[in-house]
Amino acid sequence: MALAPVPPTDSPAPDSPSTSGRRLGPDARRAQLVGVGLALMKEMPFDEVTAEIVARAGGVSKGLVFHYFPTTRDLQVAMLRAAAGELLADLDVGAGLPPDERLRVGLDAFVRYIEQQPASYQAVVRRAGSDERLLAVFEDTRSAVVDIVAATLGLPALPAGLRLVIRGWIAMVEECVLHWLDERPIPREELVEFLRRAALTMLPDALRLGDGAAGLRP
Amino acid sequence: MALAPVPPTDSPAPDSPSTSGRRLGPDARRAQLVGVGLALMKEMPFDEVTAEIVARAGGVSKGLVFHYFPTTRDLQVAMLRAAAGELLADLDVGAGLPPDERLRVGLDAFVRYIEQQPASYQAVVRRAGSDERLLAVFEDTRSAVVDIVAATLGLPALPAGLRLVIRGWIAMVEECVLHWLDERPIPREELVEFLRRAALTMLPDALRLGDGAAGLRP
Repeated sequence: MALAPVPPTDSPAPDSPSTSGRRLGPDARRAQLVGVGLALMKEMPFDEVTAEIVARAGGVSKGLVFHYFPTTRDLQVAMLRAAAGELLADLDVGAGLPPDERLRVGLDAFVRYIEQQPASYQAVVRRAGSDERLLAVFEDTRSAVVDIVAATLGLPALPAGLRLVIRGWIAMVEECVLHWLDERPIPREELVEFLRRAALTMLPDALRLGDGAAGLRP
Repeated sequence: MALAPVPPTDSPAPDSPSTSGRRLGPDARRAQLVGVGLALMKEMPFDEVTAEIVARAGGVSKGLVFHYFPTTRDLQVAMLRAAAGELLADLDVGAGLPPDERLRVGLDAFVRYIEQQPASYQAVVRRAGSDERLLAVFEDTRSAVVDIVAATLGLPALPAGLRLVIRGWIAMVEECVLHWLDERPIPREELVEFLRRAALTMLPDALRLGDGAAGLRP
C-alpha cells in the first residue's frame, strides 16, 4: 500500500542518521497517529475523534489512518490505551517521599490529568461501557491506579476489601474533580487537600475490612 | 389507533367497579408498559430492553408499545426516569431517626437497590453518557440523591464544596458496591458500615471546605 506524502513537519531532519532518506516505519507511523489523537483528546471527547479528524490534524490521508486502524473505534481504543499509559506514568511520582507527601503529589498529578482533558475523561467515565474494548481499557487502568495508590501508601499486599475502598476513593476523586471543573466553587488546593485527607482518614477502617470487625460503631 | 387485545393477566377483574368494561386509559397503559420495563431492568441492562422485548413480556403488540414510545430510546428514558423515582422513594427512609441511624438505613436501601439490578445500574453509570436524555436523568437523580443525603445528615443549606463531596461519596458507594458484587469478598454488613463511617469521618473536613482553610495539614 502506498503511503500518503508525509508533510514537512513529519519528515525526519535531512541529516538524521537513523531515519534519513526513508519514510516513517509502521510502528513510528502508528505512534505518530496515536499522538495526534492524544493531542485531539485534550480538545474534544476522545470518542468524537474520528479517523478523518486525525488525518486532517496530522496532515495525512484518511486512507493512511485506516491502513493502521481499520475502524475509527480501533483508533479510539489505541488512543485510550496510550492516554492510560500517560496517566499511569504521571501518577508514578514522589518515590522516596513519605506516604502522605507522595499521596499529595500523585493526587495532584491525577487532578491535573483530568483538568487537561475533562471532556475526554468524562466520556471515558460515562461512555466507556458502550464498547467492550473501551471498558476493558478503563477497567485495566482503574486496577493499575489502585496498585499505584497502594504502593504510594506503602501497602504492598492488598486484601480485597482494601482494593474495593481504594477503587471507591478513586471514583470519588474523579467525580469531585469533574464536577468541580464546572464552576470551581472552591480553590483547587482545598479540594486536593480534602481528597488526600479523605484517603488517610478512611484508611484505618479500610485496613480492618474483612477481619470480622463488622458492625463496629464509631 | 386500535389497541392490541389485552391478555387475561392485564384485564381488570370482571367486577372491578373502576375499570370494568373498558380498556386501560393512556396513562395507565403507559405506566403498565414502563412497569414491564422496570421489571425487565432487574434481569438485563436497561439499555438492552427494547420495545419488542417489552411487548413480548407484557403480552401486547409491538405496535402498541411504539404508539406510546415512538422509539426504544424513548421507552428506555421513561424506564430510567421511573427507576430513578423508585430509588429516591427507597432512599427517603428513617425520618425521625438520629442522623447516623438514618444514614445507615438510607445507605442500606441504596445498596439493596443496586443489588437488585446490578447490570442496569452499571449500564447507567458507564453508558448513560452515550445519550443526552439518559445523562440528564442520571444527573438529575444524582443531584436529588445529594439532597436526600444532606437532609439525612441534617444539613439543609448546602455549600458548593459540601455538594461536591457528597456527590463524590455517592460515586464511591456505587463503585464499591458494583465491584463488591463481583465476588463479595467481605460481608455486606461490613461494607455498608465502612461506607457509613466514611461519610461521617469525612464530614468535619467537608464542612470546612470553602472557608479558606486550604492546606491545613492533619
